[in-house]
Amino acid sequence: MRSSDVAKNSNFYPVILAGGRGTRFWPLSRKKRAKQLLALDGKQTMIQQTVGRLLPLAPPNRFWIITNDDLRPAILKQLPKLPKAQAIAEPVGRNTAPAIGLAAFLLLREHPDAVIGMFPSDHVIADEKSYRATIEHGAEIAASGENIVVLGIRPNRAETGYGYIEAGSASGGGALRVRRFTEKPDAEKAAAFVAAGNYFWNSGMFLWSARTLANALREHLPKTAPLLEEIAAAFGTRKFAASLRKLYPKCENISIDYAVLEPRSAKGEREGNIFCLPADFGWNDLGSWTALHEHHTAKSSPVEGNIIQGAGVFVLNANGNYVHAPGKFVAAIGVSDLVVVDTPDALLITTRQNAQDVGKVVKYLDSKRMHKLV
Amino acid sequence: MRSSDVAKNSNFYPVILAGGRGTRFWPLSRKKRAKQLLALDGKQTMIQQTVGRLLPLAPPNRFWIITNDDLRPAILKQLPKLPKAQAIAEPVGRNTAPAIGLAAFLLLREHPDAVIGMFPSDHVIADEKSYRATIEHGAEIAASGENIVVLGIRPNRAETGYGYIEAGSASGGGALRVRRFTEKPDAEKAAAFVAAGNYFWNSGMFLWSARTLANALREHLPKTAPLLEEIAAAFGTRKFAASLRKLYPKCENISIDYAVLEPRSAKGEREGNIFCLPADFGWNDLGSWTALHEHHTAKSSPVEGNIIQGAGVFVLNANGNYVHAPGKFVAAIGVSDLVVVDTPDALLITTRQNAQDVGKVVKYLDSKRMHKLV
Repeated sequence: MRSSDVAKNSNFYPVILAGGRGTRFWPLSRKKRAKQLLALDGKQTMIQQTVGRLLPLAPPNRFWIITNDDLRPAILKQLPKLPKAQAIAEPVGRNTAPAIGLAAFLLLREHPDAVIGMFPSDHVIADEKSYRATIEHGAEIAASGENIVVLGIRPNRAETGYGYIEAGSASGGGALRVRRFTEKPDAEKAAAFVAAGNYFWNSGMFLWSARTLANALREHLPKTAPLLEEIAAAFGTRKFAASLRKLYPKCENISIDYAVLEPRSAKGEREGNIFCLPADFGWNDLGSWTALHEHHTAKSSPVEGNIIQGAGVFVLNANGNYVHAPGKFVAAIGVSDLVVVDTPDALLITTRQNAQDVGKVVKYLDSKRMHKLV
Repeated sequence: MRSSDVAKNSNFYPVILAGGRGTRFWPLSRKKRAKQLLALDGKQTMIQQTVGRLLPLAPPNRFWIITNDDLRPAILKQLPKLPKAQAIAEPVGRNTAPAIGLAAFLLLREHPDAVIGMFPSDHVIADEKSYRATIEHGAEIAASGENIVVLGIRPNRAETGYGYIEAGSASGGGALRVRRFTEKPDAEKAAAFVAAGNYFWNSGMFLWSARTLANALREHLPKTAPLLEEIAAAFGTRKFAASLRKLYPKCENISIDYAVLEPRSAKGEREGNIFCLPADFGWNDLGSWTALHEHHTAKSSPVEGNIIQGAGVFVLNANGNYVHAPGKFVAAIGVSDLVVVDTPDALLITTRQNAQDVGKVVKYLDSKRMHKLV
């Protein structure tokens, strides 16, 4: 019996969080076409890739997706094999704790032994076999007791944009006990973390049983947990939509890290029962146009570092540029390190260094109520 | 009687040379949509503006246009009041001498006293009243004897991209006798020309009687003149098109400057009978995207020097950019001195300093036979 067959027959349930707006890929990403719905890397969209690489671990009917009303129709279109009822649209965004919490209470009803894998919908994974092996390992750990498993990415640079996991003692089979979750560090701290060797990037990928998660929510979010439980109880009935619409907005707006993982880890390395699985499967969260440029450059080693997506290219004294202009002939002359993204109604012109500021454009467009452009 | 009425009743015939391809405005300019057909400055196209500012000097039926088969349909569409038969398509380009020469022989047949004004079709003139006054003055000088008049632009910078006219003695009424035409100078020479004070840019705008021009061609282009005369003789008959197609390609490929003006000026300042009219009417030949950016910047003094043509703009730490993206929302963040031109099938990304290299894109596209893009 192969390892993946074990998983397929287990109680593993992937829950994909796909409610993010992803303004950092404007103008390609929009409210109704967020980053997870874009094919930023290859022909499949980010969420199709996310589901695709998990399918060897669980059949389609075990997948749950938490998203919003803007994105749900497109998600269902991109993932026609997934059960429609299991793609749930939050009436308002409440961060990750209520989202994954709702999934926990939903699963608990019929599958008390369910092991939930929580996955962002918009990350890139280079080595899918290693990825699945890590998840299977994590699912085994999560299946027993009150264990929580987090996949930790071994840092290769002093990144200040991520939270870090401080690992403690080894617990066998490569897993490490988690000592502490940290907020995003400054540059100096980040460098120290990387040098220390026992710090990992928090990937946002967690494994735990539905029971463990439900109990944790009851403990740490005592007002929110009953609301989620009440919504879950209505699932499959005519009252579900109304219940979701009425109760979900009353949930606390809080991340699962802040709500559950940090207080849990504060109990102590041994008492917290949080395990970090160091992951070496080529993870990239593609957080900006610049990150996307770097990802493509690493993959394809293009001449002069130009990644140009168009119907034809003429390049002269140009290097390090990222240009997205599908269907167009692109001429780049004497320009360096630019990011240019051409869509039918908007054109972004910036540099790799300034690309993180595109969120400001979206804010501006929001403030001007230019709805068609966001 | 106003000055313009005098001109309208005179023998003044504008001949517009509109056969140029204008690759320097790619990707906006194309073979069938050359620079003169574009509205680079205002709502009217360059050729519409050229004709419009001359109309107070001559009724529509006195205009002649020399162009080519690629551009003629669009020109006729843009200038519906001009006589179609007087828009002549060269079967092949033969530079300016055969073009204006053909016009001379055509006019000579029915209007032996015609004074021809030769005008490029793609220049900008700020002060149209001064422009027309200068032309009327020039037409008076050109009407007598074998005089040739050239409009000389007073240089305001040591431009190396233009030919210069060296003026000699004054001849009354502001006109100067021409001593010499020079080729495009190097930077040092250009600086010396500007410092000297008696050098002017050759505007490519000339005035002469049809008779003077015809005689000059017979003298200086003895093989080409009879061919042009033979073509002109067929005008208005069924044989004209065939004659043009057969004989015009046999004409010498030479500019009127090189063929007539330089040898004529070599006869000496007094014997050459060439007069330079210093022109101060705000001339600009808009020779590149960079020149267009400067022209718009001078006219409108935009914030941070950004000229952005789009359906909306967000600018952050960006200056000195020219962006042409009609109908699109444009976001420019952290970029300087760029030229970005967005068309439905092509996107140009360059800098103001490199914009003159767009001709190389066109050469590349020609060499790859990518006809739709040129």
